[in-house]
Amino acid sequence: MSELLDRTLTESARLVAARELSPVELVDATLERIAAIEGTNAYISVAGEQAREVARASETMINAGHRLGPLHGIPIALKDNIDVAGEVTTAGSKVLADHRPAADAAVVRRLRAAGAIIVGKTNMHEFAWGGTSANPHYGFVTNPWDTTRMPGGSSGGSGVAVATRACAGALGTDTGGSVRLPSALNGVTGLRPTIGRVSNAGVVPLAWSMDTVGPMARTAADCALLFGALAGFDPDDAGSVEHPVADYVGELDRGADGLRVGIIEGYSLHHLQPAVDKAVRDALGVLASLGAHPVDVAIADIEGNISAQLTVEAAEPSTYHQRWLRERPDDYGEDVRLLLEAGELLLATQYLQAQRYRALLRRQTLAALAHADVLLCPTLPFTATPLGEVTVEIDPGVPEDMLSAIMQFTGLPSLTGLPAISVPCGFDPDGLPVGLQLIGRPFEEATLLRAAAAFQTRTAFHEQVPPLVSGG
Amino acid sequence: MSELLDRTLTESARLVAARELSPVELVDATLERIAAIEGTNAYISVAGEQAREVARASETMINAGHRLGPLHGIPIALKDNIDVAGEVTTAGSKVLADHRPAADAAVVRRLRAAGAIIVGKTNMHEFAWGGTSANPHYGFVTNPWDTTRMPGGSSGGSGVAVATRACAGALGTDTGGSVRLPSALNGVTGLRPTIGRVSNAGVVPLAWSMDTVGPMARTAADCALLFGALAGFDPDDAGSVEHPVADYVGELDRGADGLRVGIIEGYSLHHLQPAVDKAVRDALGVLASLGAHPVDVAIADIEGNISAQLTVEAAEPSTYHQRWLRERPDDYGEDVRLLLEAGELLLATQYLQAQRYRALLRRQTLAALAHADVLLCPTLPFTATPLGEVTVEIDPGVPEDMLSAIMQFTGLPSLTGLPAISVPCGFDPDGLPVGLQLIGRPFEEATLLRAAAAFQTRTAFHEQVPPLVSGG
Repeated sequence: MSELLDRTLTESARLVAARELSPVELVDATLERIAAIEGTNAYISVAGEQAREVARASETMINAGHRLGPLHGIPIALKDNIDVAGEVTTAGSKVLADHRPAADAAVVRRLRAAGAIIVGKTNMHEFAWGGTSANPHYGFVTNPWDTTRMPGGSSGGSGVAVATRACAGALGTDTGGSVRLPSALNGVTGLRPTIGRVSNAGVVPLAWSMDTVGPMARTAADCALLFGALAGFDPDDAGSVEHPVADYVGELDRGADGLRVGIIEGYSLHHLQPAVDKAVRDALGVLASLGAHPVDVAIADIEGNISAQLTVEAAEPSTYHQRWLRERPDDYGEDVRLLLEAGELLLATQYLQAQRYRALLRRQTLAALAHADVLLCPTLPFTATPLGEVTVEIDPGVPEDMLSAIMQFTGLPSLTGLPAISVPCGFDPDGLPVGLQLIGRPFEEATLLRAAAAFQTRTAFHEQVPPLVSGG
Repeated sequence: MSELLDRTLTESARLVAARELSPVELVDATLERIAAIEGTNAYISVAGEQAREVARASETMINAGHRLGPLHGIPIALKDNIDVAGEVTTAGSKVLADHRPAADAAVVRRLRAAGAIIVGKTNMHEFAWGGTSANPHYGFVTNPWDTTRMPGGSSGGSGVAVATRACAGALGTDTGGSVRLPSALNGVTGLRPTIGRVSNAGVVPLAWSMDTVGPMARTAADCALLFGALAGFDPDDAGSVEHPVADYVGELDRGADGLRVGIIEGYSLHHLQPAVDKAVRDALGVLASLGAHPVDVAIADIEGNISAQLTVEAAEPSTYHQRWLRERPDDYGEDVRLLLEAGELLLATQYLQAQRYRALLRRQTLAALAHADVLLCPTLPFTATPLGEVTVEIDPGVPEDMLSAIMQFTGLPSLTGLPAISVPCGFDPDGLPVGLQLIGRPFEEATLLRAAAAFQTRTAFHEQVPPLVSGG
């Protein structure tokens, strides 16, 4: 059973296609694992019977020679801010505890068309507005590498579900880092696509100028397979962009040879916990051994990124939530309600100054990406912190606000709309995962995926199993 | 001399090309006319000697067989928020009285490449933030149809210069109606292009999400000729859009036959001065006689447009002006300073609610434009008001705020980014011009221009000469 779950999404998909793996067995094993990790609070709802029914039909289909698509028979989890027709979408809040959308989100339609089987909805930071997944309504999500620690967020449940093999892959959503942070802290691979690349139709918004759905899975190859199913134009999403979709899986074996890897001066390797610093420097060495070249680049005004990100994340969600905040303030957890209320005090000129800064930062970042194919930094400057903490010490004895500190490196792609991937690149002395972030040019997700895939041919961090499920 | 100026831009351009009209004579006559209408305060600066020098060179060129382009030898005026290398760009403010940009605006480079001769910079509402061109620094601009009345704004000087033949055509800028309002009130034709169609590089911004440069001239054909020179992608303007440019002049003779003209329920013919109501209804009859079909359309949420427009126009300019407002508040006129200070109090959520409303309004307007090729309404609900008024009575005895009232019909295209044209369509009992507004689909300026050109084959409103220069 465990061996069956240890296979990557890519392997399982290949075996299902070859009729060497039964979707029913795979879904059953996944549902058993979901039950086994219940203590992590990773899932808010599980589609048990429905998933089994679809698995049986999928098995019949494949045996009859009907393969729906590249994800045929593969168990996938959805962050619970993504609509499934007729099921509750809580977005991790009591506010939406009775919210049953009539239609699937566009990404769900795409996953189903590719043959995926939805096994459940994952827990998250309430309304995706936070980085720890400390959810007061559906339980704090815990980290399977150390269950006294948080798993990152806001897509914390998706990160835990992937790490514990309680799904083959999952969807998260990423506004300020919400796919990448739980990917890093749970030792899995996660992609934030270019803004507009994947449809947001049927997804509860956080800050609409930065929101995007993204795939999370064990390997970059798995993410490529998922991403290929998700990517494409959607006329029902005003932010969707018409741009050709690449062959993300096909390009994986192009490797990292010749790739120019940009190190951003005063930023990429700045203000890190020692274990993170070491892991990222080691990762740079691995990339160099694969033929990549480190290059120094500068982004003159990068310093304003945290404040701009906090400003945009304060203003846009508060606008969306304005009515609910008046009508049912007690249905929010205190942390999120305070953030939303603070956002209501923000001036339009402050928001617009942040927007002007974003345009400047994007120009400067694209200029840096003229000299480098990808930019490299950690996904975040520290490893998983104890549950419930609202500050973190990067320099010992100097507590910093969790929200600002956790977005130190994820804000750059979020503000500029650029794609970024988080890849496991090491462990700290306590056995907690470290994530490497690579940032690419608009719509060049294929470059990020192949660099990450090449990295995973030389490293085994992504193959480690968390003690919660390895029995270690 | 007067006969020479009475020719349209299109006629003059043809005669210059045929060497039947001397650019030197045309420019000399124009400069004389500029001097004659000095009392209107239409120009802030006149490029006398430089224009004469370029006219002489243009004449030499054309005689030697070198025609630069379709505007060869044609005298053009620029609103004074558009940069000319080495000359002052005041934007109608004391704040910029010493601002000498080093480079031409992109539109100026394009006009020069087409052979145009810049004869001067026109007066405007300070920083384009108002609809009356009551400029406290460079003089109130007066209306040549009645010099005790205002000419509209903010591109008031351009409107007066075109109406008085003190240029063959002019550039204005339009945020909330600033090309269309002075076109209507001065009896000339003016086009607000689709947002992103014409470069804003080198133009002082007002509200960047709505700002666009647009041509003003006596006829729709003249506007088409100017617009053909202006339209196109510019990588130096982040808001510029890559979209094919049409043959605007070539399409003019396609007429209005078969065109579906949408009348927006409860809006297009609502809350108008009687003379405006009559002129617009008559115009609809003229269009019908040309083979156009009136159709009823609905835009469910149109009512919020004035408030959304005021919100966006409050927030974005206040952001741009923030530093100057602190450093040199006394260099602003009182009306504009108060508006900018009020904009600083606006909340981010208010701005963002307006932005959400804009997205909704655009969807609804595009849906209406699926049933109609153009939408019809007046350009504004009243004719020119006395100089210095800050209220207007549309219904007798009921004063309304000038700024809100003047944008009653121009806000829809501004908020939705759609193109719109203002065409002379009548006179009120006092001999003051009335303007008709046609609104089109994104990038379908050619449809607006040909409908307006067809209208001008059946009407002579655009041929009338204001009493100030007709001697009437």
